[in-house]
Amino acid sequence: MYFVSKNVNKYNEIKELLLDNGLTHLRLEHKKIELKEIQSNFLDEVATVKVKQAFELFGEQVLIEDDGLFIESLNGFPGVYSSFVYDTLGNNGILDLLKNKTNRKAVFKSVIAFYEGKNIKTFIGEVKGLISDNIQEGGWGFDPIFIPENAEKCFGQMDLNSKNKYSHRRSALVQFYKWYIQNINKIVK
Amino acid sequence: MYFVSKNVNKYNEIKELLLDNGLTHLRLEHKKIELKEIQSNFLDEVATVKVKQAFELFGEQVLIEDDGLFIESLNGFPGVYSSFVYDTLGNNGILDLLKNKTNRKAVFKSVIAFYEGKNIKTFIGEVKGLISDNIQEGGWGFDPIFIPENAEKCFGQMDLNSKNKYSHRRSALVQFYKWYIQNINKIVK
Repeated sequence: MYFVSKNVNKYNEIKELLLDNGLTHLRLEHKKIELKEIQSNFLDEVATVKVKQAFELFGEQVLIEDDGLFIESLNGFPGVYSSFVYDTLGNNGILDLLKNKTNRKAVFKSVIAFYEGKNIKTFIGEVKGLISDNIQEGGWGFDPIFIPENAEKCFGQMDLNSKNKYSHRRSALVQFYKWYIQNINKIVK
Repeated sequence: MYFVSKNVNKYNEIKELLLDNGLTHLRLEHKKIELKEIQSNFLDEVATVKVKQAFELFGEQVLIEDDGLFIESLNGFPGVYSSFVYDTLGNNGILDLLKNKTNRKAVFKSVIAFYEGKNIKTFIGEVKGLISDNIQEGGWGFDPIFIPENAEKCFGQMDLNSKNKYSHRRSALVQFYKWYIQNINKIVK
């Protein structure tokens, strides 16, 4: 099965998640390309369009993952545009936007989409948390400013193993894996 | 010809622009619907996909307009995601992001796309300017914080007639109009 993403960090994290969770019946090969995304406020809609493109390119079972940080007091910003916002404003920009806000609640959401040419399946995982007051270096993307609920540290300061305990990405991946194992015999090869 | 946009303000501005510039050979009918947008850093790529959709829906000559505010010290943010950013962060959010920046330069870009089922034509207009220190009420969208070069007031404090002198939208529309008039006989009806 191909895992299609321009982001190597994401592929590594997914591989480690599979390993740590004993999800050994899935062998992923990374295809490092950038897929076009639509503008939509819904992660699963974005993922659906992306996974279709991926299948058209490779003609085999494909998996993609997309995620977004939804900040409550910013009306869900940056949401599905997280990667553009990270590239332009960075974590400093997010902290500037929250400077005068007392509500620092945020949700990190991950969607996994799978397509074998017949049916698209999507699985959403999420983790609630807070945006930290300062950047705490480590990790990638918004990891240095996101503290998951019931944790003391932000994602950026955890090793991959600790991050994966809370991870929105793990939750989506485990849901997909369970479904996949149950349906593997029905899936067109 | 159909002008396809969810935004009534935009339609009204375009109508007024046509009138004020004596561009009388073009009769637009507003179709108020929201078109899907792709995520891309290029306005004309977004517009190309949108105008195709519009043609598929209405099957006749269609015109769409898209615009974006590109702020230099924010690496082009909010760019093509201007409408999402306006809805979530508003003008206050932009000012928060610029609080500690001395460079307040920005470019407002507009793209007009036309499609008659054979060839897609796009026209880009732009106006340079500055982001104001405070919100100056009036107008819509980012009008209350954008001061065009060589002007004293922001777009929001100008009447439509004055705004249209500087307008990126006027520039794109006039380019389109000139092309359209020259090519009207070649265009499939």
